[in-house]
Amino acid sequence: MKQIDLMKELHIPSDKKILMLVLDGLGGLPFRDGKTELETARTPNMDRLCKDAVCGLSTPITPGITPGSGPGHLALFGYDPLEYTIGRGVLEALGIGLVLTPTSLAARGNFCTLDPATGVITDRRAGRIPTSKCAELVEKLKGITIEGVRTVVAPVKDYRFALILDGEGLEEGLTETDPQKTGLKPLKVEPLHEGARKSAALLNEWVEKAFEVLRNESPANGCTLRGIAKDPGLPSYREVYGLKACAIATYPMYKGLAKLVGMDVLDAGETIQSEVETLKKTWNDYDFFFFHVKKTDSAGEDGDFDAKVKVIEEVDAVFPDIVSLRPDVLIITGDHSTPSALKSHSWHELPVLIWAADIRPDAVSGFGERQCMAGGLGHIRHTDLMPLAMAHADRLTKFGA
Amino acid sequence: MKQIDLMKELHIPSDKKILMLVLDGLGGLPFRDGKTELETARTPNMDRLCKDAVCGLSTPITPGITPGSGPGHLALFGYDPLEYTIGRGVLEALGIGLVLTPTSLAARGNFCTLDPATGVITDRRAGRIPTSKCAELVEKLKGITIEGVRTVVAPVKDYRFALILDGEGLEEGLTETDPQKTGLKPLKVEPLHEGARKSAALLNEWVEKAFEVLRNESPANGCTLRGIAKDPGLPSYREVYGLKACAIATYPMYKGLAKLVGMDVLDAGETIQSEVETLKKTWNDYDFFFFHVKKTDSAGEDGDFDAKVKVIEEVDAVFPDIVSLRPDVLIITGDHSTPSALKSHSWHELPVLIWAADIRPDAVSGFGERQCMAGGLGHIRHTDLMPLAMAHADRLTKFGA
Repeated sequence: MKQIDLMKELHIPSDKKILMLVLDGLGGLPFRDGKTELETARTPNMDRLCKDAVCGLSTPITPGITPGSGPGHLALFGYDPLEYTIGRGVLEALGIGLVLTPTSLAARGNFCTLDPATGVITDRRAGRIPTSKCAELVEKLKGITIEGVRTVVAPVKDYRFALILDGEGLEEGLTETDPQKTGLKPLKVEPLHEGARKSAALLNEWVEKAFEVLRNESPANGCTLRGIAKDPGLPSYREVYGLKACAIATYPMYKGLAKLVGMDVLDAGETIQSEVETLKKTWNDYDFFFFHVKKTDSAGEDGDFDAKVKVIEEVDAVFPDIVSLRPDVLIITGDHSTPSALKSHSWHELPVLIWAADIRPDAVSGFGERQCMAGGLGHIRHTDLMPLAMAHADRLTKFGA
Repeated sequence: MKQIDLMKELHIPSDKKILMLVLDGLGGLPFRDGKTELETARTPNMDRLCKDAVCGLSTPITPGITPGSGPGHLALFGYDPLEYTIGRGVLEALGIGLVLTPTSLAARGNFCTLDPATGVITDRRAGRIPTSKCAELVEKLKGITIEGVRTVVAPVKDYRFALILDGEGLEEGLTETDPQKTGLKPLKVEPLHEGARKSAALLNEWVEKAFEVLRNESPANGCTLRGIAKDPGLPSYREVYGLKACAIATYPMYKGLAKLVGMDVLDAGETIQSEVETLKKTWNDYDFFFFHVKKTDSAGEDGDFDAKVKVIEEVDAVFPDIVSLRPDVLIITGDHSTPSALKSHSWHELPVLIWAADIRPDAVSGFGERQCMAGGLGHIRHTDLMPLAMAHADRLTKFGA
């Protein structure tokens, strides 16, 4: 039986509240004085909680696998990321705050440079045009109309844009138009099954019209479409866990991911402080709170050890406000590691802390990667966290007689 | 998604080299002064590396399962041994250095004793005839010819021999001829599906001719065939990992296993010292080195604690030569435990050490079973080792966006 189905079968009502605090890219590697960012940060409040909590290390996907934000969060939410996948087009759209419906088909678009004489691609990224130029071109593409569907096109970054077609009968299962190397013409979208024929025709029509619009532009006189996909139709938190869940996040991507599993996305402002205010205001309205802090990851990606330490300390500073709400189950972890040492996401395990009434406390007395190595949780997987949270919230009944 | 498929999808080029040092049967049990062989051995070089490495314990298959050499190595190589199986006939052939092609069908043969009057088996192992007698009988069996196929027959040990038929259209999916008890006649080979009909007929023809040849021998006047199988056609290291891989081993079985996953098998002589020389000479030619030490297992099987300690110390003595090549990722473990206390393979976890630039070092300061219990890797599976090796060699890209 799949974990999702087990949760559907076993969940029972309770008034206990679960708070999952996700510090994006939290995990680190030894970098200064042999210490990670979390080991370096002064976190007296989290450390105090450690003493009454159980800690461990958690693998986001499987050992050695570095996850993108999509799979990392699906795993935190308890959905096996090797089974449920989110298309690149969908993530790109979510990342800039576009709204997908069950009839939406989303694609990632890349502006490219075509040889005017032969039509072959001479630069797959159109010289990495700046975002401002991208936005200007997107304005022109907005004029394209396709009969029977609504189209949304929006700039993302540099040469990247998002395209959504919305209408009845659109299906995924479509090839990309990027031939993956220069010297070749952009490909046609091809349907991978009968049901996707209509979608292919409409996307090809849109691309043809786009080429017409872009014909006299330079260097971006063409475009390709990649990762054409629909909302994966994940079962909702309500359905799987019986939870009324909300997301408190500042970045569109994470709001979008939360929406995919049916969480309410709250207006949480731009800062950790404003996120805490939102948490306080809505504390009585939900059973489950996904509280997302982005800037640990951004600092890690920049290789800025000090900045990452500072974000962790900022979170620790507001921690008493969070704890004062008296969540019944409190989990602190990250979606993946982003060590400043590597300036990128990595496969390394995440420190994780679970606080609840019915835990078995361990001897860990400070929240850090090395301390968590010896924690009572041992080495778990991200997909284990939601079942553990549900259990500690008295929200799961016995399995079998 | 299966791990093999994930590796196929995510592997990227890198010039980093991986060395997997496999001490066959490494794991032990407390035996003298409450210590295992590895805990007893003086291993200053491996212990020194421990301090900058991450250690743990690894289960070859699943808890409680004692693997043979085939499944143990498949797991080390990252192939789920519960999914990919290697027929006994194939292992028997590989074990004595026979070469299998995609058109080969291999069987393990057992000499047996038949009652001359009734033809029923009176001894399934022909009184465990010595290997010399086995070789003598095999010489006679070599005279058997079957139209349309090439036959290879070779002695293994005692009453056991290996048989290979090689030709077009041979398929596996065949029953064994050993009725598993005395008082019954040897069975016919039966095809389990239509495509195996030809193979069954040819094998039955060979067995009939063998009975003719053996008729006047004593006590081995008959034989049975078991584990009739083909090369399982495993995806190669090149395909799965993008690695140019080689095997440095002294025994045919391990050379054969490495060949099944497409490794180049190098001429490595007979001793650990000659294996190290081969490693040095070929260091620039490969991305991945499977370095196999056999004698830890042989000593364990003999129940010779001191001999096993000594082999481990021999490996430690050449360890500086290995490390001086500066592998980017170095893994030390075994395929399974062979405690001298048990004189056999066992299910116990293997101590494992991973050294690489981007590890999170733990507090383990000596390489031994009990020290590894507290290691930062925790408890992993053998199939986790290759993904971890690939990640630490910067050879895996991000999973999902």
